[in-house]
Amino acid sequence: MSTRVGILGYGNLGRGVECAIRQNEDMELCAVFTRRDPKDLCVLTKKAAVVSVDELLQWKGRIDVLILCGGSATDLPRQTPEYARDFNVVDSFDTHARIPVHFARVDEAARAGSHVAVISVGWDPGMFSLNRLYGNVILPEGSDYTFWGKGVSQGHSDAIRRIEGVRDARQYTIPVEGALEAVRAGENPVLSAREKHTRECFVVLEEGADVARVEDAIKTMPDYFSDYDTTVHFISQEELMREHGGIPHGGFVLRSGVTGWEKEHKHLMEYQLRLDSNPEFTASVLVAYARAAHRLYREGEKGCRTVLDIAPAYLSPRSGEALRAALL
Amino acid sequence: MSTRVGILGYGNLGRGVECAIRQNEDMELCAVFTRRDPKDLCVLTKKAAVVSVDELLQWKGRIDVLILCGGSATDLPRQTPEYARDFNVVDSFDTHARIPVHFARVDEAARAGSHVAVISVGWDPGMFSLNRLYGNVILPEGSDYTFWGKGVSQGHSDAIRRIEGVRDARQYTIPVEGALEAVRAGENPVLSAREKHTRECFVVLEEGADVARVEDAIKTMPDYFSDYDTTVHFISQEELMREHGGIPHGGFVLRSGVTGWEKEHKHLMEYQLRLDSNPEFTASVLVAYARAAHRLYREGEKGCRTVLDIAPAYLSPRSGEALRAALL
Repeated sequence: MSTRVGILGYGNLGRGVECAIRQNEDMELCAVFTRRDPKDLCVLTKKAAVVSVDELLQWKGRIDVLILCGGSATDLPRQTPEYARDFNVVDSFDTHARIPVHFARVDEAARAGSHVAVISVGWDPGMFSLNRLYGNVILPEGSDYTFWGKGVSQGHSDAIRRIEGVRDARQYTIPVEGALEAVRAGENPVLSAREKHTRECFVVLEEGADVARVEDAIKTMPDYFSDYDTTVHFISQEELMREHGGIPHGGFVLRSGVTGWEKEHKHLMEYQLRLDSNPEFTASVLVAYARAAHRLYREGEKGCRTVLDIAPAYLSPRSGEALRAALL
Repeated sequence: MSTRVGILGYGNLGRGVECAIRQNEDMELCAVFTRRDPKDLCVLTKKAAVVSVDELLQWKGRIDVLILCGGSATDLPRQTPEYARDFNVVDSFDTHARIPVHFARVDEAARAGSHVAVISVGWDPGMFSLNRLYGNVILPEGSDYTFWGKGVSQGHSDAIRRIEGVRDARQYTIPVEGALEAVRAGENPVLSAREKHTRECFVVLEEGADVARVEDAIKTMPDYFSDYDTTVHFISQEELMREHGGIPHGGFVLRSGVTGWEKEHKHLMEYQLRLDSNPEFTASVLVAYARAAHRLYREGEKGCRTVLDIAPAYLSPRSGEALRAALL
């Protein structure tokens, strides 16, 4: 039983989904839907159609799952509820504070159309959420820690690029090793933003820009940098492209807790991701949950789900018997 | 909604379950069932009944889940199918090769009695299985690695104790740091048993025992030690009790894989457990899955499940809304 997939949006994430589909024999990319003129878009998969988003509804019944590869700021809040009525959909909505509202709107649409939607799929939210949940239920008396990095933060890089005099920039979020070690040692530290992460910026200036003013504008920027120890390096565009062209990321979820009648035993659960490509890894998670969405739909399920609601076996093309024999 | 729990078997694991129930407000320990004379057994929970296993069936309807805390060699293969007909049950059956047979027998009994059974719950099988599954589905092109330790292996300690001249022993399984590092570096090494783990033994001799003969008997023991680099220390009973009285364990599950059209990007998913008490951590996992078993039963489900088949949210006492807001 193969799953016919459509991709909406062909940026880094959409291309990542295309690559991930190629690694899964039971998945097939049928169409890429785009807001651009389809004639201007060349995709890697020869057999896939390239279609204007305006014709998406004509594909109802011709694809099993639509993977939404737009952004969380403006695309997904509109697209996921819109398409959940007519398609099984999966998205990577990652604005944590707005997940409850997004969930409610998508759930209503999916139920109305008797489809399955899975939202907020990826690694955070996503795999990190799963590890926070498993940590909390197994060690109910304990502390949660999430560290991000080392990796490129798109939002922080964009914030630097908006400063006058900046041509290009790349920002790395880096976990503070000493804080990680304190958590691993079971010290249950209370950590401020500054104590958990540092920020390192590589900045290309416009001709004639004021170096000191740009550096100050970065380091004092509220929310983004002022609460952190921030290092700024000014480099050439060539060096930025050569040394900082990738989109690596990753991080850690730790649960430190106690058991025993007198809480005399300590335990540490640690989950770590080290990703060469943030969008390709996110895409790989999306494709696994697209398989689950299709299977849930075939079983007659409907409505919105998150990674917390889906039994792990649904992610695999293998049977329960095969999984028990090979992986359990 | 609280879950009324019965424990069958009051060894290290049973006591661990008792302690874990105390840490979960929605769980209540109603009874401990024992093969011993109940008058000789003193449990920590004042309100819990201590009951002969012969009277277990009289508790049908008075407990929601029975947690089976016996061993995988002889207890669970008999007990889990026996009680799955009349109770929702959870066990920690950990003989990997026999899981398919155990599953089939338990499934038949649970379906016949319209109850839910969850088998092979703990950390391996259990949390490690989950991480192997998530790793495989997200990175289908990659390699799996499981390392155990540093921790006490009960089976290997028992094997040493059976040698003539040995009074007591404790065996630690230790992952080889260099092998772990090679995996983390994305080298995808092919590792023999010897290259993955070393074994360290602390042995107390009987009066007049032959030191050289015992050491040789350990190091050449097939299956258990002959395929490993093994170190043997002879110590006093007092030192064994003082320095090696705990039952720590843990380990690592790693998935190393590639993504991208040309497989040009590497990714590493690493899960680590560091446990002061192997039985208490296993017990904590059992209690979380007992909650899930009760909830599945209330929803009308029946039959056998493993950790791979249960949606993570079922493990938590919190609502879907609360989980999405707090942990996703």
